[in-house]
Amino acid sequence: MLITQTIQEVRASLAPIRSAGKRIGFMPTLGYMHEGHLKNIDLAKQHADFVVVSIFVNPMQFGPAEDFSGYPRNFERDRRLCESRGTDLIFAPSVSGMYAEPALLTFDIAQMSDHLCGARRPGHFNGVAQVVAKFFNIVQPDIAIFGQKDVQQLFILKRMVADLNFPTKIIAAPTVREPDGLAMSSRNMYLTPEQRSQSSILYQSLQLGKKRVLTGERSAKKIIADMTHLIQTASEARIDYVEIVRASDLQPIEVIDGQAVIALAVYFGKARLIDNIILEIKGDSVNEMNAFV
Amino acid sequence: MLITQTIQEVRASLAPIRSAGKRIGFMPTLGYMHEGHLKNIDLAKQHADFVVVSIFVNPMQFGPAEDFSGYPRNFERDRRLCESRGTDLIFAPSVSGMYAEPALLTFDIAQMSDHLCGARRPGHFNGVAQVVAKFFNIVQPDIAIFGQKDVQQLFILKRMVADLNFPTKIIAAPTVREPDGLAMSSRNMYLTPEQRSQSSILYQSLQLGKKRVLTGERSAKKIIADMTHLIQTASEARIDYVEIVRASDLQPIEVIDGQAVIALAVYFGKARLIDNIILEIKGDSVNEMNAFV
Repeated sequence: MLITQTIQEVRASLAPIRSAGKRIGFMPTLGYMHEGHLKNIDLAKQHADFVVVSIFVNPMQFGPAEDFSGYPRNFERDRRLCESRGTDLIFAPSVSGMYAEPALLTFDIAQMSDHLCGARRPGHFNGVAQVVAKFFNIVQPDIAIFGQKDVQQLFILKRMVADLNFPTKIIAAPTVREPDGLAMSSRNMYLTPEQRSQSSILYQSLQLGKKRVLTGERSAKKIIADMTHLIQTASEARIDYVEIVRASDLQPIEVIDGQAVIALAVYFGKARLIDNIILEIKGDSVNEMNAFV
Repeated sequence: MLITQTIQEVRASLAPIRSAGKRIGFMPTLGYMHEGHLKNIDLAKQHADFVVVSIFVNPMQFGPAEDFSGYPRNFERDRRLCESRGTDLIFAPSVSGMYAEPALLTFDIAQMSDHLCGARRPGHFNGVAQVVAKFFNIVQPDIAIFGQKDVQQLFILKRMVADLNFPTKIIAAPTVREPDGLAMSSRNMYLTPEQRSQSSILYQSLQLGKKRVLTGERSAKKIIADMTHLIQTASEARIDYVEIVRASDLQPIEVIDGQAVIALAVYFGKARLIDNIILEIKGDSVNEMNAFV
C-alpha cells in the first residue's frame, strides 16, 4: 500500500496506474474509520482495480462552532485498517497542501443546501462539494464511493457530477448498521451507555415511517408527526429535524411520491446523529432503495 | 479531422488518444473564427499532440440584453479554417447536450468579477467558468489555450484551475492584432469603415499608458486620465471603462506595482471592444508580459 501526502506525489503515483488502463476507485474520508468505511472499501474494490482512500479532516466543511479541532484522528489505526482491506493508496494531505491560498472561486449549491443538515450547517456542503471537486481533479477516479448515510452530501455530489460533467461515476454505499439498527458513525463514540442504548430509536422511527408509507399513508406531515412521537419516547433524545424531501433537489414535499428521502438528525448529549431511508413510490408500489449508482 | 457533437462521442474519440499517451490540447471558442483563433490553434499544436477545438455559443455567459441570438455563427467556415490549421477534433455540442437540466450547482467567483467587464456583465464570468469546467471534465485536456485579450476570463480561469486543482495547464496566448494595432475580434465586423479607422485609438491608448509607466509614472489615476483623454479624441468612441487592476485578484490599485493589468472597454456604435496590456513592475524595471503559462 502506497502512502502519499502531497498532490504531486499522488498524481505521480496514479499516472502509471491510469496509463496501464486500470480503473481507479476513490473513497474520501475524514479518517477515524469504522466498519462502515471498511465495507465501502470492499465495495470500491468490486468496482475498481486500484483503490485510493483519502484521509483529510477538511476545515472548509466545519462551521466556527463545530468540532474541527476536536474531530477524532488516528492515522496509524486508519493506515492499518485500510491496508487490512486491500486499499492500494492512501492520500493524506495537509491543510496547507490542499489550500495553498484561500479559494476565490467557490460553489453555490442553491436550494440543495436549504433543508436537512444544510439549514443547520451554513457553508458545510459548499465546503464538501469544493473539496470533493478538488479530490476528483487530483485523483481523477473512474468511480467514487459515498455513503447513503450522508444523504444530502450524496445527492449534492451526484448533482455536482451532472452539472459539471465530471468523468467520475458516483456509487452510493448502503448504510452500515450495528445489530440494533444504529447507523455506524465516528460520532457514536461520544454516546454514554444509556444514550447508546436509546439511540436505536432513530432506526426504529425510520422503519415506522416506511411502514406508514407501505400501509398507504402519503401525508409527509402525518408521518413526520408519528416518527417525532416515537423518538420523543427516548428521554435523552433531542430532535434537530425529521424531514421528508424529494430526492432530485432535496426540497420538502407534502405528499409522498416518486423518490423521497425520509431523513432525521437527533442529538444524544453532544453527539448529533443522522440517518435516512430513500423510498421509491409509484402508485401503490413502495420500494426502499439501497446501494445505487 | 474528427467532428463530434455529443459528450459521449467526444469522450469515446479521446479515450484511445489518451491511452496512447498523447498530450491533448484544448481551445474553447464561440466560433466565427478569425486569425486570432487560428494563431491559438498553432500555439496549441506546439504544446500538444492532439488539438481539440470546441465551437459553442454558450447561453449561460450572455446576459438578457446581450447578443446571444445575434452572435455570428458559421460552422462550415469554422470547420474549414480549423482543418486548414491542423485541428484534430472539433467538438460542437448543442445547448441541450451541454445543459440537459438547469445547473443547481454554480460558481461564485467573488471579487474577481466585481471590476472590469464583470461589473457590466453580471453572471457572465460565472457562465464562462462553469462552461469551461464542464469542457475540462469532458475533454480532460493536458493544456488549454486562452487569449490574453479576454484578460479577466484568463485570470479567473487560472484561479479556477488553482482553486479546484484541475489537472490542466492554462497557456495564455498573446493578443493577435491588425497592422494598426486593433485586437482581432469577431465583433470588429460590426464596425463601420469610419469606426474601424478610429478604433486603433484603443491600442494607442494602451501604448500611452505603458509609456507613462516606463517613464516613471506610478499613479493609476493619472495614467487612466491620460488614456481617457486620448480615447476621447476619437469622435465615435464611447468609453465603458479604463481601469488598472492587480493581476492576482483583479482589484483596482492606486499605485502601479507588481503585476498590473491596464484594461479598457470602448463602444464604437454597437460594437463593444476590449483590450489590455499586462505590465510587470519591479522598482524601476517595467516589462510587458506576453504569452505566459
